Amino acid sequence: MTIQEQIEEPLLIGIDGGGTKCRAIIYTANGKQLGKGLGGPANPFFGVRQAIKSIEEAAYKAIEDSGLSGVSIKNMKAGVGLAGVNLAKLYHEILEWEHPFSELYLTTDMNIANLGANNGQEGGIIIVGTGSCGYIDCSGEEKMFGGYGFPIGDQASGAWMGLKAIQHTLLILDGFSKKDVLSQKVADFYEVETGLELSEKLIGQASKDYAQIASLIFNCARDGDLKANEIVNEGLLYISKLVKKMLKTKKIRLAMIGGLSKYYLPLLPPRVASCFSYAVAQPEVGAVIFAKQKWKDSVNNILVDKSA
Amino acid sequence: MTIQEQIEEPLLIGIDGGGTKCRAIIYTANGKQLGKGLGGPANPFFGVRQAIKSIEEAAYKAIEDSGLSGVSIKNMKAGVGLAGVNLAKLYHEILEWEHPFSELYLTTDMNIANLGANNGQEGGIIIVGTGSCGYIDCSGEEKMFGGYGFPIGDQASGAWMGLKAIQHTLLILDGFSKKDVLSQKVADFYEVETGLELSEKLIGQASKDYAQIASLIFNCARDGDLKANEIVNEGLLYISKLVKKMLKTKKIRLAMIGGLSKYYLPLLPPRVASCFSYAVAQPEVGAVIFAKQKWKDSVNNILVDKSA
Repeated sequence: MTIQEQIEEPLLIGIDGGGTKCRAIIYTANGKQLGKGLGGPANPFFGVRQAIKSIEEAAYKAIEDSGLSGVSIKNMKAGVGLAGVNLAKLYHEILEWEHPFSELYLTTDMNIANLGANNGQEGGIIIVGTGSCGYIDCSGEEKMFGGYGFPIGDQASGAWMGLKAIQHTLLILDGFSKKDVLSQKVADFYEVETGLELSEKLIGQASKDYAQIASLIFNCARDGDLKANEIVNEGLLYISKLVKKMLKTKKIRLAMIGGLSKYYLPLLPPRVASCFSYAVAQPEVGAVIFAKQKWKDSVNNILVDKSA
Repeated sequence: MTIQEQIEEPLLIGIDGGGTKCRAIIYTANGKQLGKGLGGPANPFFGVRQAIKSIEEAAYKAIEDSGLSGVSIKNMKAGVGLAGVNLAKLYHEILEWEHPFSELYLTTDMNIANLGANNGQEGGIIIVGTGSCGYIDCSGEEKMFGGYGFPIGDQASGAWMGLKAIQHTLLILDGFSKKDVLSQKVADFYEVETGLELSEKLIGQASKDYAQIASLIFNCARDGDLKANEIVNEGLLYISKLVKKMLKTKKIRLAMIGGLSKYYLPLLPPRVASCFSYAVAQPEVGAVIFAKQKWKDSVNNILVDKSA
């Protein structure tokens, strides 16, 4: 089958709308990648209009990237994963959009991440980046674990680690404990010498500003710093308990994703580490899988209807 | 001396401008209290115009409360303590105000709290309420300890305690540890049954919303709850270290003020508790003391000038 023949079939576009970027990727129905595109922020919590604009931007860039004259957005089945669309209000607001695709299948950011990481198989994911949470989709039943946000939840996440290291550094800068490597590295990172200066850099900042120092904390732990090890070990313990909880009912495929997974995975106890499978693909590819599943379902439904 | 004679002397008005309320109190120059008044929020961080409005409101109410026809605002030396006026910008913005008093002496909220608690004697204070910090004024040299704000600083404060208890409760509601009295009481307080409900009540909330459960945590600790005791003991340890630090250079008079002082003081180790003296008066009275000191200084300066 030539590419020209492939694109006469419906194409699939997967869209992962994140808080800072929106990613789009185009596939043929039989799995050939055609192009990729990037757009602006697309978290509908911070504006449905902006999210829609970023989705279109990413989609048109992916079409441009595909470099094929025959590729038309009107011919595409879109799978779109967005934060917050588990809330009925946001879900319906997005669906009111007169989108340019032939179909739009909407789901959560968690669902597409899970479909991507587990390549459409039944499974679960643990995300550890700026925030943290667990997600399972087991026989069509979704379940979330944690993910309550900064500063109350998201154990083991970058922001959670950063907050602990900063609290520790403030106490040391005030002379409540002896200087250590971690506090020195944190002060250097934020280019401060006093507690007042450090607090001025952080008060009112978002979780991502705390998460910036997560890799620094892992490095200090590796180099033997006591407090850094305490933080990392608390994170590892939480992940170990989370894994046990997520696999309690059924031994599903499990993958760890997010910016900190590369740090945590090698440090987990072997019996916990062995529960994890490789994360196969990115969330935007999961969105393609989602679109394909929904499209096949609709085709099957039509066939069922016809045979009825 | 009759009251009529007293009010022919300059009167002193002390003003404590807080984030939720502004308090004013009027005294004669020789220490007789004449009246009190309450105004709206007066933290200049959140608007200098509002702060000024609240100060005037509190002052006029105090005059009304004094019930004396001869009491005129034009005859008053005002001592005003406000948060943030250690910053040059806010200090000068307030001083540009064409105030109705005969004189306006401006200082920080910490200074008037210290002057009140130590009745104008050289000393220090530890404030433990929604936030926490230490403050010393020793031979005219001021020093702050901590007070970096939520969620990075303010160890032992109500918001700090609340955050710890809420993090703990979320883990228990998610089944990571066994239920305990503290988590049950926290869930009952916020009227929630799940982690998601609890997080929805708290995400984006201010430190005071976390501090609401501080007394509940002290009560759970008293009743033997392990985690509540861990939190309270960490708070006590911080206060003990803070006291040691504050008294290191000189054994000054030290008082503890703020909503949690009544909980912490009886729980401190005796050697630490014995470092604390009684908090004599409220910050607004400290503002009166400040006004009196400044006024006397100015009178002395005039005498010095004349003799020169």
